[in-house]
Amino acid sequence: MSTKETALSIFALGGINEIGKNMYVVQYEEDIIVIDCGGKFPDETLLGIDLIIPDITYLEENRDKIRGMIITHGHEDHTGGIPYIMKKLDIPIYATHFTLGLIELKLEDHKLLRDTKLTTIDSETTLQLGSMEVSFFKVSHSIPDCLGIVFKTPEGTVVHTGDFKFDLTPANNERPDLHRMAEIGKEGVLVLISESTNAERKGLSPSEKMVSSHMEEAFLRAQGKVVVSTFASNVSRVQQVVDAAKKTNRRLALLGRSMVNVVQVAMERGYLDIPDWMLIEAREVEQMPPEKVAILCTGSQGEPNAALARLSTGNFRDVSLYPDDMVVFAASPIPGNERDVSKIIDNLYKLGVDVIYGSGSSTGMHVSGHGYQEDLKFMLTLMKPTYFIPIHGEYRMLHHHGLLAQSIGVERENIFIIKNGDVVDVVNSIARQTRSIPSGDIFVDGMGQGDMGSVMLRDRKVLSEEGMLVIVITLSKYDRRILSGPDTITRGFSFDQNADQLMRQVNKLVTKTVTELQEENVRKWNVMKQSIKKSVGQHIFSQTRRKPMILPIIIEI
Amino acid sequence: MSTKETALSIFALGGINEIGKNMYVVQYEEDIIVIDCGGKFPDETLLGIDLIIPDITYLEENRDKIRGMIITHGHEDHTGGIPYIMKKLDIPIYATHFTLGLIELKLEDHKLLRDTKLTTIDSETTLQLGSMEVSFFKVSHSIPDCLGIVFKTPEGTVVHTGDFKFDLTPANNERPDLHRMAEIGKEGVLVLISESTNAERKGLSPSEKMVSSHMEEAFLRAQGKVVVSTFASNVSRVQQVVDAAKKTNRRLALLGRSMVNVVQVAMERGYLDIPDWMLIEAREVEQMPPEKVAILCTGSQGEPNAALARLSTGNFRDVSLYPDDMVVFAASPIPGNERDVSKIIDNLYKLGVDVIYGSGSSTGMHVSGHGYQEDLKFMLTLMKPTYFIPIHGEYRMLHHHGLLAQSIGVERENIFIIKNGDVVDVVNSIARQTRSIPSGDIFVDGMGQGDMGSVMLRDRKVLSEEGMLVIVITLSKYDRRILSGPDTITRGFSFDQNADQLMRQVNKLVTKTVTELQEENVRKWNVMKQSIKKSVGQHIFSQTRRKPMILPIIIEI
Repeated sequence: MSTKETALSIFALGGINEIGKNMYVVQYEEDIIVIDCGGKFPDETLLGIDLIIPDITYLEENRDKIRGMIITHGHEDHTGGIPYIMKKLDIPIYATHFTLGLIELKLEDHKLLRDTKLTTIDSETTLQLGSMEVSFFKVSHSIPDCLGIVFKTPEGTVVHTGDFKFDLTPANNERPDLHRMAEIGKEGVLVLISESTNAERKGLSPSEKMVSSHMEEAFLRAQGKVVVSTFASNVSRVQQVVDAAKKTNRRLALLGRSMVNVVQVAMERGYLDIPDWMLIEAREVEQMPPEKVAILCTGSQGEPNAALARLSTGNFRDVSLYPDDMVVFAASPIPGNERDVSKIIDNLYKLGVDVIYGSGSSTGMHVSGHGYQEDLKFMLTLMKPTYFIPIHGEYRMLHHHGLLAQSIGVERENIFIIKNGDVVDVVNSIARQTRSIPSGDIFVDGMGQGDMGSVMLRDRKVLSEEGMLVIVITLSKYDRRILSGPDTITRGFSFDQNADQLMRQVNKLVTKTVTELQEENVRKWNVMKQSIKKSVGQHIFSQTRRKPMILPIIIEI
Repeated sequence: MSTKETALSIFALGGINEIGKNMYVVQYEEDIIVIDCGGKFPDETLLGIDLIIPDITYLEENRDKIRGMIITHGHEDHTGGIPYIMKKLDIPIYATHFTLGLIELKLEDHKLLRDTKLTTIDSETTLQLGSMEVSFFKVSHSIPDCLGIVFKTPEGTVVHTGDFKFDLTPANNERPDLHRMAEIGKEGVLVLISESTNAERKGLSPSEKMVSSHMEEAFLRAQGKVVVSTFASNVSRVQQVVDAAKKTNRRLALLGRSMVNVVQVAMERGYLDIPDWMLIEAREVEQMPPEKVAILCTGSQGEPNAALARLSTGNFRDVSLYPDDMVVFAASPIPGNERDVSKIIDNLYKLGVDVIYGSGSSTGMHVSGHGYQEDLKFMLTLMKPTYFIPIHGEYRMLHHHGLLAQSIGVERENIFIIKNGDVVDVVNSIARQTRSIPSGDIFVDGMGQGDMGSVMLRDRKVLSEEGMLVIVITLSKYDRRILSGPDTITRGFSFDQNADQLMRQVNKLVTKTVTELQEENVRKWNVMKQSIKKSVGQHIFSQTRRKPMILPIIIEI
């Protein structure tokens, strides 16, 4: 018998202790399969960063072992990193018909479509990727065509759920395949990897169907135009808006780039049914009686440049809102977006329009795409895994998901609450977590990409909160005389009546510091700069309680 | 009959279309009474600003008419501006015993206590302030000793509610004085000014008493220490924690400066009853059996330097948390604070402690201090005003409060949804809003105070998101030769592998730009700087898609 170090390994490169940048890896010996490739939007502490993607050092170092990348569904937190990663790695991508439609849009934007190998899969597909046989099962979520994944490895079966809920009356009739899941569980699951987004929420998640009656009611009640804002990718929600418009004889205009693009992909690929007569252009809206018009638009999260924000301030070319019009938020604000959303609601009320907003449970206009505690317990019960790894969530969500697994009988020591980079190794059917591989955040900032590092972000933070002083002084190479300056320029530094006086004091202090150092025969620039920083910094703090960045520049001529 | 331009005027200098910086004014001819003097915490767009207070230009210009300032209660959004305003205006302050206790702490911090005239009032007080007779009525809220105000003016009676809810079973037995309110309403109210914070929430606000049974249950269940985090000023909540500790035989430690200070004020002034044996110092905590200890601490809003945040990361000197300990959030996160609170919850779970968190309605550990829709309707019904001005809220809240007023019979045209600075004038008992006075935000930044202006904030925004390039070039006064440079220094500017190359290109471009301008005999520095900014800016954008601040410095020797 050979004593192998590791046979089967499972880990996350993103998605743990965070919502976003999902990327998971299942490796059996020399074969690596990557699951999802998500992006994450930075919070307000990451000043100026556009997007965060996973650190893929491990994949780059093992590129010859990668057999493929499977994308479970088309949401940004599972696809947003694809164009950036594909610039570094050439991996074949496997995804469903609809998911590939969205990925193709993305690759086209980055001029990568021609060079990426894309393969369409569905719930009936079986792939042999190296030593692993990979098959799929249908799950329901808030976007069409979602899959869970079954990896048959020589060590045993690994199941990745994808994002899911158990919606038994989905608006698009894409039911979760309970029978197939039962079968998989019956055959035996060694490791279950399951998403944890709503592990804090009690009960069973409500069905998407709930929305339709509320939507119809709003469309009947509205005296003027009805504007519905939701995620473009929630095609079932879009279909319910289309259906309500149809029943109330309204034409439909689509506002916002992603709404237009995603609806087009969904229609072309057969996931959305909009009658030919219904769609109108934005510029036709004002020519029609308002009670005959509905609008679907982006911006439900308060994004300042999206269609809804512009409508709310009267800055949308071609379309204006009037009293009697109605605006429906058919999406809940994601934590962190509440203030932006509230601003839009205030502006809409100022226009005199009626607004339907608030949590989905109060308005009936939104349901979550992620399973609640009972959904998660159904999945755990169907799969009855030996080992369990909760993924896709902040620590508290993973923690609660772990408790749920215990409640249905998974052994406490068989539950792995891991971090990104932590590796769960299975050898002779025994799982252990003892090692980690590199992982982390890669920031995308304009066309740059890399570990921008803490220095740049720390600088940005100081600059943003305190501003800066640039102090320029020119010295003579020959006699060290001050030829020019010191001159002080400030940017973003808070001023009041005494600012001029303060700057004069700073300049005097710099002259004094430099002169003293020269008398002591100190000529090293770094020492001079440090002394200037220190003396000026102390003086400014004593006078203003602020600590701006101080940037001394010494020129020698 | 004289034809007076205005007799009675009512307006807000802060508190409208915002939560915070409350300041309202009732003026009758030559007599001005100011109500509240609040601060507001800046949102994340106001980089580095510490506090926002109202613009008091109007009060400064009419300082000789001001008869007094009445503070309705001791919350920051009603008192936070006091020390800053008192540096500019010398107004006598009227407030209740407890409210004055908190104001005195504030004035002491700013070394203003000796020079400020403070007068204690209660619900029985009647003041004659100029031509107005001012009396008060008890309301319940989430801090002790709150008042509504009645202004008897020759034009009629004006009522300001203060912040309120109808808590008929308050934890401190300070019942709202329904009989007095009924009397005031019966005598006739011309204008009601009422707070709108929870005008979006249906039903009647739950009683503070609800918390006690849940608190006690948690104290009984906890195997180790119980840590409760709440607002120090919510003395009723603090009392309920004390009571639960008493029943379960636990000693109590107070962590966090404001918790210690406010509890001391509340005890000294008789608003809080803590047995002598109960209080212990932080350093005594670890010496006692954990099941005999309770802790009350600040930081329920996720403030990064508060006691709870430090406990959650193991950085609180003297006190550590262990599995079996329990942490209770006895406050809901204020919109905007969710992420910071979530981080703390995650860290607490990582320590293995049990955490009780979430909305008050799910945990029973928190109730709002502001009345819901039915509370607001009770107030409107009791006062049955001719005119109504909803205050203290974002636009959508004022809008809903206006609808509530209509629902109980106030005429639509008698409801004034105003902005800060808009004046409601009452002449011969007819109210109109036609004019405005100056109003706005004053930023407090360190020891500076003033309208920091959009330029500074715009600079900070660019610096924080894009960073900057300082370009220094030294020219000869005599022959315009370049004596030194150009040298480029970056801070907070995003880099990648090609940064060095980019800086070389920038320096070349600057040399070229300067040389060309000199050949054209352009010698004005401003023109030169603009040209450098433009050419460098365009080049950097084309190479990186970023727009950093560019700061050219030209030195002539």
